[in-house]
Amino acid sequence: MSSTSPIGIFDSGLGGLTVMKEIRRLCPREDLLYFGDTARVPYGNRSPEAIKRFSLESSHFFLQREIKLLVVACNTVASWALPEMTKLAPFLPIIDVVTAGAKAATSTLKDPSIALLATRATVTSKSYHKAISDLSPNARLHAIACPLFVPLVEEGFIDHPATRIIIREYLSQIDHQTIDLWLLGCTHYPPLKPQLEQILGSHCTIIDSATSCAEEVRRYLYSTNMANIQSRGEDLFFVSDDPEKFGKLGPHFYGSSVDNVKHQILEERDALC
Amino acid sequence: MSSTSPIGIFDSGLGGLTVMKEIRRLCPREDLLYFGDTARVPYGNRSPEAIKRFSLESSHFFLQREIKLLVVACNTVASWALPEMTKLAPFLPIIDVVTAGAKAATSTLKDPSIALLATRATVTSKSYHKAISDLSPNARLHAIACPLFVPLVEEGFIDHPATRIIIREYLSQIDHQTIDLWLLGCTHYPPLKPQLEQILGSHCTIIDSATSCAEEVRRYLYSTNMANIQSRGEDLFFVSDDPEKFGKLGPHFYGSSVDNVKHQILEERDALC
Repeated sequence: MSSTSPIGIFDSGLGGLTVMKEIRRLCPREDLLYFGDTARVPYGNRSPEAIKRFSLESSHFFLQREIKLLVVACNTVASWALPEMTKLAPFLPIIDVVTAGAKAATSTLKDPSIALLATRATVTSKSYHKAISDLSPNARLHAIACPLFVPLVEEGFIDHPATRIIIREYLSQIDHQTIDLWLLGCTHYPPLKPQLEQILGSHCTIIDSATSCAEEVRRYLYSTNMANIQSRGEDLFFVSDDPEKFGKLGPHFYGSSVDNVKHQILEERDALC
Repeated sequence: MSSTSPIGIFDSGLGGLTVMKEIRRLCPREDLLYFGDTARVPYGNRSPEAIKRFSLESSHFFLQREIKLLVVACNTVASWALPEMTKLAPFLPIIDVVTAGAKAATSTLKDPSIALLATRATVTSKSYHKAISDLSPNARLHAIACPLFVPLVEEGFIDHPATRIIIREYLSQIDHQTIDLWLLGCTHYPPLKPQLEQILGSHCTIIDSATSCAEEVRRYLYSTNMANIQSRGEDLFFVSDDPEKFGKLGPHFYGSSVDNVKHQILEERDALC
């Protein structure tokens, strides 16, 4: 690998495109290679074993393509499969949304009280608990699993009374007055930000990890002299299900056109390496 | 295969257990072998190519186990993959929920006006249109895709105000007065029957294909002398993701305990045979 190699971005489906959008904004000359496992999305309610297996199969896909950096844009993968992925490719730098989100959540306030909204798998993993307590041992984290947010966003039920009822129900699990900031621990959740603000009040602080993750990527590239100064910034997309559907839905997350999407069936592997 | 061979039951996840429940009720001495592709559920929003590929991979699983009959308990699979599955195993009898549901919908009224509630993939396939017009050429079918029903049922949002809003919104696409009967074209939907009756009025007729499918199975077994009169009726369960989770959630759909669930990773196949 060299500075002109592409950056790999891995997500279970479409959501990681919000992370890619921020990376593209901050790093316009990098070649970006996205893989979305759309044939098996969503990962959020699957078992740790399945998440690890799927993530390693995707790692093999990226390893065949000589990337210089892997961005794990899926919170569920970042919560469960990082040790296995690192073991498989110890030489490959990995930047993930959980670590980036934890940094963003602990960088503005001392010992904040944080409410985490995430998938069931991310909440169960306690990955954010660990990442945040490593950075700010006295921070308090209240995690809420919001399994219906992904299907609601994917179906376009954003500014919708049913969605507001479901948000209120999920959020009723904790006392809002005790919370300093709300952390969106899933790349599908940012479209619901206006509805969350409506319910929590406009004074609330809501952060998501996409921007923070992109900043980590830029920092890494410049501190290691791995920034690409030659390319014009090419986008490459691979998905495990229908490329056409991805090309149609992708722009809602990416903000730009999503062209030349290729189909890639992953090789299923029994063993974890 | 012989009369003492098991009956295979295939679904993308848990929903097919509602069909298995009816088969177990009508055929207490049959050995039943269930496979749920829980690592890749839901199929309902996937591409036809992915549904066909996954279904063929599952067919191979059943072919290795010498079943005497395959019940396709998943409406999405029955809508998209039957020709490919039949081509792969032309000697294996297959009974599916779509054909059974179409029979049930056209057996009580002449030229009925039917509202079909189903996943997006089932609606797009027009499988029910075809099956119903084969049986009753003057019947009218109004199909409504209800992609949020599966996650709502899976999350236990059954008797819930948000669910009622979403049901009302989906159902508002057609004039209820013109409908003779409502056909549930997804094995996940029966738990929503009380909410549907509340909205449509108690006089409405709602049918689902599980019972009808089980009756087809019994009829087939007796008409072909393939009924098992020796066994005590064993249940065997295989899933592609966490067996423990399946064992916990399964009884809500099966109505009995779901024990001895085994994990089975399917072999991924590029070609469609």
